[in-house]
Amino acid sequence: MTMEAFGEEEFGERRSWEAPRPVAEPGWMSEEELAATRGRVPILYVEAVPVRVDHLGRVTRVGLLLRGSSSTGRLTRSLVSGRVLHGEAIRDALLRHLEKDLGPVALPVLPTTVVPAAVTEYFPFPGVSFHDPRQHAVALAYVVPVTGECEPRQDALEITWLEPHEAVSSGVLDEMEGGRGSLLRHLLRHVGAVD
Amino acid sequence: MTMEAFGEEEFGERRSWEAPRPVAEPGWMSEEELAATRGRVPILYVEAVPVRVDHLGRVTRVGLLLRGSSSTGRLTRSLVSGRVLHGEAIRDALLRHLEKDLGPVALPVLPTTVVPAAVTEYFPFPGVSFHDPRQHAVALAYVVPVTGECEPRQDALEITWLEPHEAVSSGVLDEMEGGRGSLLRHLLRHVGAVD
Amino acid sequence: MTMEAFGEEEFGERRSWEAPRPVAEPGWMSEEELAATRGRVPILYVEAVPVRVDHLGRVTRVGLLLRGSSSTGRLTRSLVSGRVLHGEAIRDALLRHLEKDLGPVALPVLPTTVVPAAVTEYFPFPGVSFHDPRQHAVALAYVVPVTGECEPRQDALEITWLEPHEAVSSGVLDEMEGGRGSLLRHLLRHVGAVD
Amino acid sequence: MTMEAFGEEEFGERRSWEAPRPVAEPGWMSEEELAATRGRVPILYVEAVPVRVDHLGRVTRVGLLLRGSSSTGRLTRSLVSGRVLHGEAIRDALLRHLEKDLGPVALPVLPTTVVPAAVTEYFPFPGVSFHDPRQHAVALAYVVPVTGECEPRQDALEITWLEPHEAVSSGVLDEMEGGRGSLLRHLLRHVGAVD
Repeated sequence: MTMEAFGEEEFGERRSWEAPRPVAEPGWMSEEELAATRGRVPILYVEAVPVRVDHLGRVTRVGLLLRGSSSTGRLTRSLVSGRVLHGEAIRDALLRHLEKDLGPVALPVLPTTVVPAAVTEYFPFPGVSFHDPRQHAVALAYVVPVTGECEPRQDALEITWLEPHEAVSSGVLDEMEGGRGSLLRHLLRHVGAVD
Repeated sequence: MTMEAFGEEEFGERRSWEAPRPVAEPGWMSEEELAATRGRVPILYVEAVPVRVDHLGRVTRVGLLLRGSSSTGRLTRSLVSGRVLHGEAIRDALLRHLEKDLGPVALPVLPTTVVPAAVTEYFPFPGVSFHDPRQHAVALAYVVPVTGECEPRQDALEITWLEPHEAVSSGVLDEMEGGRGSLLRHLLRHVGAVD
Repeated sequence: MTMEAFGEEEFGERRSWEAPRPVAEPGWMSEEELAATRGRVPILYVEAVPVRVDHLGRVTRVGLLLRGSSSTGRLTRSLVSGRVLHGEAIRDALLRHLEKDLGPVALPVLPTTVVPAAVTEYFPFPGVSFHDPRQHAVALAYVVPVTGECEPRQDALEITWLEPHEAVSSGVLDEMEGGRGSLLRHLLRHVGAVD
Repeated sequence: MTMEAFGEEEFGERRSWEAPRPVAEPGWMSEEELAATRGRVPILYVEAVPVRVDHLGRVTRVGLLLRGSSSTGRLTRSLVSGRVLHGEAIRDALLRHLEKDLGPVALPVLPTTVVPAAVTEYFPFPGVSFHDPRQHAVALAYVVPVTGECEPRQDALEITWLEPHEAVSSGVLDEMEGGRGSLLRHLLRHVGAVD
């Protein structure tokens, strides 16, 4: 399996269940099954913009991940992002991907509601605003304050903390793939961090 | 395939594409493939409460579908509900299911944003608030005014238009399956139609 | 009273009440009382972006009002905007201002919920993102489809219907005062009309 | 000034400004001016449900304030609630009222966005769902996790931490005035804490 742009190494990974949910069919998939599934249904994702906030809840820094893109060879910046597994609650998926990308002591403060700040539809064909060459993905997006220490994990080379106005500068947004620069700018405007 | 509670006859159905999206792989599935897919990933749904509104946007009537449940044999009330197909935009899925359940001249006024009023997670195992015995489903829910004539289609026997306070009476909510009575009450409170 | 940028001629205006609310104290104010009130509390506003939508709820055109600004003498583009009166429901205020600016047959489709798409805080002092020289105003903002004929009224010279990408071009946004260009861009992104 | 139901002692209170906002006209009002203002415009409020959350953001406890109502003489339960002052940002007002009611070390985690979870319109006349005998108030409502120690202040006699299902039991909701029991139930459903 080649390394892909948005950290899909969790595919096929088993995970522990939150009580009181039963340990049911864990949705394990071989690569063939994964490929087949991606051609049949939209795949549900969660995406998160990790931020530092002040005592008033205002965003002071935005955390962007630096990754090597296997498809293009160049470095890209990305959000925390990953699939919701079969049987997994959205909150569990969100925490799992935050810990996967930011480390176990990032101490994210998850939103009280799972109603997302934005819904993004990535299509596998060209000519769309949001694009994912691998699949049709629908992502529920959140802005998540983190209060602990973050360290890059998995395939992320680095976490960069930028001021909001730096994060939406054209140089940075251009380093994001599939339309995520546009998503980032919208989410930061949603929380009032940029005009 | 036995008839199921929430109108899954669209599985395997081909659909026309909205321009400018290409006519790509339509995500057709056999029953075996559908069953396999349901065991592997959460299935993305849209749900809609059809309503009549006055000139101020206030809900005056709530449309509930009466269906026969194959699993229990009894009649149940339900919302407009159905799967998002591979390659299909959320808006397209929402319109398709509204027309499927309410007929071609219901003239729904779709929301301007796809950010849902509620997100509901249905799990296939017991002991959860929202339950779907067939699958793990994640549903984006909307309140949708309809301005035209509605006529029941497919497996719906009848559409009943109730006043909001009638729709959330215990007798009616008890006729809804899988936690949808709770969802309905929340959505009607979200739009200020009930206390 | 000099003409002001955002159509405050409704101050002091009496209005009819929606049943079943009683005809109570109508909040009539002299100019002196208005000025005093503006210095004491934040003033609640509603703002609306009138749009044309297609059958899928996608925004196809954005209606902007062209007005003469008394303070600067130049022409400015603006949103539908106005104060919520004492005793007036938010929905009533929204409809009243839409009809005031777009005419009686604009036939707006008001949102089913009064939870706004954005909340904007205008302060009377410089150096803030959103600025109103007259007052501290807090505006609840909505995107509102209109289905009828629109004709400029009151102090609006013209209504221009632009495609979404035109509406957020820098030339147009620069003609909007007090930060409303930024608000407009955010709202159009919220409904997926621009990237 | 008689003690009122929802802690209006902050009227007339001066407050420190957040940099970089200038120390401008502070909106100080005498009792006569306050009474006059309340008869002229809707008064903007913030309301907050203080909650304890687990590592997944799920609400585990709901904090309700016990207060003596001067108008009825009986004890009532209430939310954190208070007016937004002239020139004050919504975030500042929210933090100020949380600290006023819960003490200086409650350490609330303010929402990243000021778009509220609910908007409630309280009218001074009878026969409405939400009622405030003193005024027409429009309240932006939030669910706010608190991470520190809470101690009742001002006119609150006690803070009670209830499990979500206890908080929405009829005995508790009946002790809340003006429709706030209905608001509380809606907000707890919005965050998925109750069905």
